Amino acid sequence: MQMKPLIGRDTRLCMSLSARPGNFGSRFHNRLYELTGLDFVYKSFSTTDLGAAIGGIRALDIRGCAISMPFKEAVIPLLDGLAQSASAIDSVNTIVNDDGVLTGHNTDYGAVVDLVAEFDRTMPFVVRGSGGMAKAVVAALGDNGFRAGTIVARNEAAGRAIADRYGFAWAAEPEGEAALLVNATPRGMNGSDADVLAFPHATIAACTVAFDVVQYPVATPFLKAAGEAGKRCITGAEVATLQALQQFVLYTGVTPSPAQVTDAADWARAHP
Amino acid sequence: MQMKPLIGRDTRLCMSLSARPGNFGSRFHNRLYELTGLDFVYKSFSTTDLGAAIGGIRALDIRGCAISMPFKEAVIPLLDGLAQSASAIDSVNTIVNDDGVLTGHNTDYGAVVDLVAEFDRTMPFVVRGSGGMAKAVVAALGDNGFRAGTIVARNEAAGRAIADRYGFAWAAEPEGEAALLVNATPRGMNGSDADVLAFPHATIAACTVAFDVVQYPVATPFLKAAGEAGKRCITGAEVATLQALQQFVLYTGVTPSPAQVTDAADWARAHP
Repeated sequence: MQMKPLIGRDTRLCMSLSARPGNFGSRFHNRLYELTGLDFVYKSFSTTDLGAAIGGIRALDIRGCAISMPFKEAVIPLLDGLAQSASAIDSVNTIVNDDGVLTGHNTDYGAVVDLVAEFDRTMPFVVRGSGGMAKAVVAALGDNGFRAGTIVARNEAAGRAIADRYGFAWAAEPEGEAALLVNATPRGMNGSDADVLAFPHATIAACTVAFDVVQYPVATPFLKAAGEAGKRCITGAEVATLQALQQFVLYTGVTPSPAQVTDAADWARAHP
Repeated sequence: MQMKPLIGRDTRLCMSLSARPGNFGSRFHNRLYELTGLDFVYKSFSTTDLGAAIGGIRALDIRGCAISMPFKEAVIPLLDGLAQSASAIDSVNTIVNDDGVLTGHNTDYGAVVDLVAEFDRTMPFVVRGSGGMAKAVVAALGDNGFRAGTIVARNEAAGRAIADRYGFAWAAEPEGEAALLVNATPRGMNGSDADVLAFPHATIAACTVAFDVVQYPVATPFLKAAGEAGKRCITGAEVATLQALQQFVLYTGVTPSPAQVTDAADWARAHP
């Protein structure tokens, strides 16, 4: 590990804005700054005045800002432009400040693009959900050549809106079989949905890849069942780490080694 | 030394704003946070948009902000109120944010008040200078019962304006003798004024206390001459440390021990 620079006038600040800030970002980014010897510091914030907060990012030359609920869409008119990752889903989870020019990105979208990059584009898939994360997953698949998709959502209007944009089908409940199953709902998340299985056992048994965006816990009932059935699993923790890594690269221009990324992600999970 | 808390959602940010930020504040405050185990972090900033920067302090709930040149007077209309230390000289060097209510303070004034607290109020004094620091020194003396004062300033209008407010005299050059001599000009500061003696040798020989606000170097020609003559000396480093300590107490509500303050001040000077 390199010597950590002292915080001073040359240190760049990166931050996050959300109604209920977590600590994953602070832990992950600060640990990577330390491992890579970069003179950066990361701090999470909340706000009740998004306009003034974004004005402060410009005025204080804060290098980057992660955007979480409920600001991902409201922030768009306050920025100078959107990268393709954000314009694809009209949702920003990352701001990069280049000398006062603020560009919105979406690294959730970018993370899904990277995670499915190696898969066969012809594989049938089902995405369950119609919220922000479902939009990111469906757009990432649709924009990258996947064609045989079904969006499963109880809310037909929301589900069809997402599906129609890419010529995918809609269904209220999972039907038939698909090689790639993606859960983009709170099913299996700690809390009242903890015991809910995102897909029926028969559907899981017929798939090749099980992908869950739920981060807490990492081992949801869906992924547990898929793992026990010997399926390839992609976890919400992988998505969270990969999207944070893409933020890190956007902010610093530095790509850490895989070992450094693993260290930072493990460390962040050990210091919640 | 206590364990330093990890930066996260509960960490409070304090900061500074100036056209040309130094590192003294970052080093001093961060070191004291570490020594006292407080979950704070301090970072210096510059800005070209003071209004948006102050808006950001409110929107991001930044706990405190040191204000340096050229913002000490311009910031006043952006605040919700002034403490007596700031209203006494219409100059703010510290903002305290209490849940969005911003109050301006002046800890340069407060530091001088503390440094002269033990002195006999009847002692004749001379303050040399007519800038912001001279204003702070003269007001601190005048507000605390010192009556026998002369303000020495080449700029007669500025000098008389400061002197008249407290019924002090004005002079263009030091005349006669005074027990307390205060240099509040750049005389003796590193740079083109480095060799300039703030008061004549005869005046120094006749004083009891020699007080210099110049911080770099600590041993100005004035204080060197006074020290060699066995006079009691008050240095610009003492002023800088004491005003930063008052900021620390305003921000955190915690008063560090004298040993912790000395450690932080020494450490800040060792890491410029």
